[in-house]
Amino acid sequence: MDTPQRDDVRRVSDLLDSGRKDDLLEFLHPLHPADIADILQEIADDHKVKLLKFLGTELAADVLTEIDEKSGESLLQLLTDHEVASLLEEMKSDDAADLVSRLDPEKKDRIKALLPSDDRARIHDLLGFEEDTAGGIMESEKLAVSERATVQDAIQLVRTQADEIENAQNVYVVSEDGVLRGAIRILNLLLHDPGEPVTEVMERNIVSVPVTMDQEEVAILFSRYDEFALPVVDTHDRLIGRITADDIIDVMEEEASEDITKLVGTDEDEIGERSPVRISRSRLPWLIGGLLGEVLNAVIISRYEVPIRTIVVLVFFIPLLIGTAGNMGSQAAVVVVRELALKEIDIRHTWRRILRELQVALINGLVLGALLFAVIVIWQRDIGLGALLCVSLLTVVLFAAFMGSSVPLILHRLKVDPAIATGPFVSVSNDIIGLAIYLTYATIYLSMIQ
Amino acid sequence: MDTPQRDDVRRVSDLLDSGRKDDLLEFLHPLHPADIADILQEIADDHKVKLLKFLGTELAADVLTEIDEKSGESLLQLLTDHEVASLLEEMKSDDAADLVSRLDPEKKDRIKALLPSDDRARIHDLLGFEEDTAGGIMESEKLAVSERATVQDAIQLVRTQADEIENAQNVYVVSEDGVLRGAIRILNLLLHDPGEPVTEVMERNIVSVPVTMDQEEVAILFSRYDEFALPVVDTHDRLIGRITADDIIDVMEEEASEDITKLVGTDEDEIGERSPVRISRSRLPWLIGGLLGEVLNAVIISRYEVPIRTIVVLVFFIPLLIGTAGNMGSQAAVVVVRELALKEIDIRHTWRRILRELQVALINGLVLGALLFAVIVIWQRDIGLGALLCVSLLTVVLFAAFMGSSVPLILHRLKVDPAIATGPFVSVSNDIIGLAIYLTYATIYLSMIQ
Repeated sequence: MDTPQRDDVRRVSDLLDSGRKDDLLEFLHPLHPADIADILQEIADDHKVKLLKFLGTELAADVLTEIDEKSGESLLQLLTDHEVASLLEEMKSDDAADLVSRLDPEKKDRIKALLPSDDRARIHDLLGFEEDTAGGIMESEKLAVSERATVQDAIQLVRTQADEIENAQNVYVVSEDGVLRGAIRILNLLLHDPGEPVTEVMERNIVSVPVTMDQEEVAILFSRYDEFALPVVDTHDRLIGRITADDIIDVMEEEASEDITKLVGTDEDEIGERSPVRISRSRLPWLIGGLLGEVLNAVIISRYEVPIRTIVVLVFFIPLLIGTAGNMGSQAAVVVVRELALKEIDIRHTWRRILRELQVALINGLVLGALLFAVIVIWQRDIGLGALLCVSLLTVVLFAAFMGSSVPLILHRLKVDPAIATGPFVSVSNDIIGLAIYLTYATIYLSMIQ
Repeated sequence: MDTPQRDDVRRVSDLLDSGRKDDLLEFLHPLHPADIADILQEIADDHKVKLLKFLGTELAADVLTEIDEKSGESLLQLLTDHEVASLLEEMKSDDAADLVSRLDPEKKDRIKALLPSDDRARIHDLLGFEEDTAGGIMESEKLAVSERATVQDAIQLVRTQADEIENAQNVYVVSEDGVLRGAIRILNLLLHDPGEPVTEVMERNIVSVPVTMDQEEVAILFSRYDEFALPVVDTHDRLIGRITADDIIDVMEEEASEDITKLVGTDEDEIGERSPVRISRSRLPWLIGGLLGEVLNAVIISRYEVPIRTIVVLVFFIPLLIGTAGNMGSQAAVVVVRELALKEIDIRHTWRRILRELQVALINGLVLGALLFAVIVIWQRDIGLGALLCVSLLTVVLFAAFMGSSVPLILHRLKVDPAIATGPFVSVSNDIIGLAIYLTYATIYLSMIQ
């Protein structure tokens, strides 16, 4: 949500209050539906309904498409079933399906009954696909001609359907049973003789998206092939819809938010959420997991009670060791998670990837270990203690790098989202094993100097 | 980089060895340039040069555009200046400028001298813009007609320039001094009478991008207005280029990698990097910062030596307290950072945003505190100790949430990238202040029970 100017919001409210429809429409005319949507979200509920009515069904539908999920839901509650149905008729099928999916079941059925049968069927089909797949983000609208059509037929189709299909770029060519055969850029239609058969001018080697493909993979296809729109096909290669670059931009925003928030054990629904209770609920499981792990950690330290009592100074460095290992482990995990998301890792060579992390940890561990050694020798004037901490640090960070890089790769193989790898499991096991290593070394060290 | 089939790589190598150019081209014909680029990256250096020659300048230029940065650089070293220059001529201006910017200065000058003067000027102009701005990602190629043109003139322009401008979607209308006046979808040209003036059929309220706008802001414009291409204008509103959705998809991939990797103190160049030394170097500053902070932490603990000696059990819980506070602080920081990136935070209400984090921390702190209290009472059978830890945890997490949410907001105001906020500064200050709070409470507690 961008924040609209306060002046604009006040202006629109005033015009609605005084019922000056013409002035209002003149004021809103130069604005994009997304900008009107922002204003709509800021005004009072009764004003919202009034504004939508003033806008007329077509523009109101465009504005509704741009509204964020949460505001959209509450707005739909303010409208009658007939109003919602006529707005849905004006929307692209994918936006309409998104909106319908957010209605409560009863209202959903009532509204679906009010729709013309072809719109109903289209929305029904789209609702059948998983939300995060190609089917869930595609629209059914597309320009398609038969293999036997001519360039002139294709131009005719573009002329008659252009207003229904926003941003159309290609005319697709399909066989009699709907199998995708090729595509022609609309721009290229202008360059050919109207009498030529479309099969002569179409591009045959086109990239298509299977309807079940995960939306993240679809985004990678777009990024790879630099397309503005890709056709979607079912398991029999029949053309059933298309996905456009603007949908992919939204998917990428969503997936990036999902990855980033998962790294700290919450979810992307939290972005922009205002209720502290709902935010707390989404963050708690991770925190509780972490806390229980740290309790186990405390139990382990308590087992080492004797050496701790003997030399309290060793305790000062516990947070340092586990903090540094934690930093190193998350660096490895985050980079591997991102590389997996971008398909930058060759799955045949996972060992090579883990080995690289170990090399990095060795280099960085040696640098940090040397630094720590110097600090301790200067501060505590104790070379033995410095060596103990230097060796402990090196062991602990090697272990952390191994965990940080291998866990995401293992999760990926198990088809679990690797972004959860930086969660409590890896960080707590780093803490526990790290501490166990340190205290073991410390015990050996103490027995040596005594 | 997607990994091509090993068989394909072997096949191409064999065909290159035996010099069977026709068979090779037939084999590569159905492949997309991006797929050929993947194969190219896997074959031997002398094969690479041979393959590019076989492909012909036009296809070779497309393939070169798809190659990743690092491989592209080394490949350019294998080609003569004349070869590079003729490849550049075939490329879109933005891709050509990217490539030129990666050449060493001397080679750059030699190659620029070989280019036709208009290509040279175009590349020169593009190189003048900051890499991460609209100017840095735009291409100069665009379809533009004068305000006095007719629909027929615009169609004629599309016909003659279509092969130079990939994925053109709009014809832009400009005034005599180049100021952007409006745009017409190519598709709409088909719907109008050829004799009509373009000013009658063009859309006037179009979104344009100032050339200096940050690329992340441009991505938000695309996501907001659902466009496939946006015109770029200079400070005098003159049309100087356009940005297409496929470039934005690449920008979003890059920005998401940048945000995610910055969270752990490394950078996005590391994604896919193979040299452990280079990886180590990009991660070290953050690690050293963290380590030095933790040394300070150890110094602080050492000041509290007396109570620690008195009751060793309190020490067991140090990692628990700072670990939990760390988790909570990063949750707050990551969500705020992401909300800032998506412009979901109203900058006028930063206090409200911080307050919300404090409410969340209060709820989660109470839940975790109660849990910890129960664990300690059961395990250590000491209600006083349980209460001490419960109160300490609550104070520490409130502080962590405050730091985690306020630091990104402050950095944002100071125009520093808030993604660095989860770095050593916040985590180490959480550790230090958290520990100071705990040890202070512990000292008071010990003086009370003695």
